Amino acid sequence: MAQNAPPADLMHYEAMAQDALRGVVKAALKRAAQDGLPGEHHFYITFKTKAPGVSAPPELLSKYPDEMTIVLQRQFWDLAPGETFFSVTLSFGKEPKKLSIPYAAVTCFYDPSVQFRLVFEVRVAEPVAAVEAPPAPAPSKKSQPAAAPAADAPKVVSLDQFRKK
Amino acid sequence: MAQNAPPADLMHYEAMAQDALRGVVKAALKRAAQDGLPGEHHFYITFKTKAPGVSAPPELLSKYPDEMTIVLQRQFWDLAPGETFFSVTLSFGKEPKKLSIPYAAVTCFYDPSVQFRLVFEVRVAEPVAAVEAPPAPAPSKKSQPAAAPAADAPKVVSLDQFRKK
Repeated sequence: MAQNAPPADLMHYEAMAQDALRGVVKAALKRAAQDGLPGEHHFYITFKTKAPGVSAPPELLSKYPDEMTIVLQRQFWDLAPGETFFSVTLSFGKEPKKLSIPYAAVTCFYDPSVQFRLVFEVRVAEPVAAVEAPPAPAPSKKSQPAAAPAADAPKVVSLDQFRKK
Repeated sequence: MAQNAPPADLMHYEAMAQDALRGVVKAALKRAAQDGLPGEHHFYITFKTKAPGVSAPPELLSKYPDEMTIVLQRQFWDLAPGETFFSVTLSFGKEPKKLSIPYAAVTCFYDPSVQFRLVFEVRVAEPVAAVEAPPAPAPSKKSQPAAAPAADAPKVVSLDQFRKK
């Protein structure tokens, strides 16, 4: 049990568990799409807006340059969970906007009704040169760390809260 | 956040997470079968010997009437991970014996090299009438609780230890 220097995880269990648990997000969305949300269940889904494959109206992407949280409770339409991403239409200021979000972009899935939460780490490669805006100070919004590695870097999953019966 | 009586989990997140994380066991075994065990990795796998689908020589099943732990480190052969169960040949007192174990029968997967552990709850239906032996006291072996529900009862997964980097 006592180990001086724990060996490297050559099995990459964290990545395996992350891949596995992203399946829970997919399964929950599939159930909601097919049968609706049962009882008081509803979902808070946080995702990296700059992750590969994210698609949303530009005004949303510029408003949320790092992360965005959507709520799937009553006001959502056309929820379509695919194999690698889901799309949904939500109302923003009474305007419907369609988003497409890869499961790999999701950093948090939370169902407040039973306080079930899954937290994933998603690392988004930071472009060397700024694409849309100069690297001006953005006081209220936290950007990715400059040292974020490439998109294929190892990912870590943690279970922030895992509800037990 | 404060709730007087938490509502029932109609989404069955625990079962969803259990199903998902059993995929980690399968993936680890597949990797070991294809490429061997990397580095110092090895597996302790505990399973319910009376779970549906378990197959092993009768002397092993009678020696371990509740749970059995096998070690996959160096002395194992013919590891064949399928979709719903795996089979492997192990040496017991220098005699090779083949076991077939459904993933649904596994209660613990543990890799001591990186202290990665997944714990599953498996409920095995207790037969109303004893099949092989009368319900005599078995001092050193813990049997399933008499009130164990049917095999299709909800199953609970817990992450006893979830290694983080």
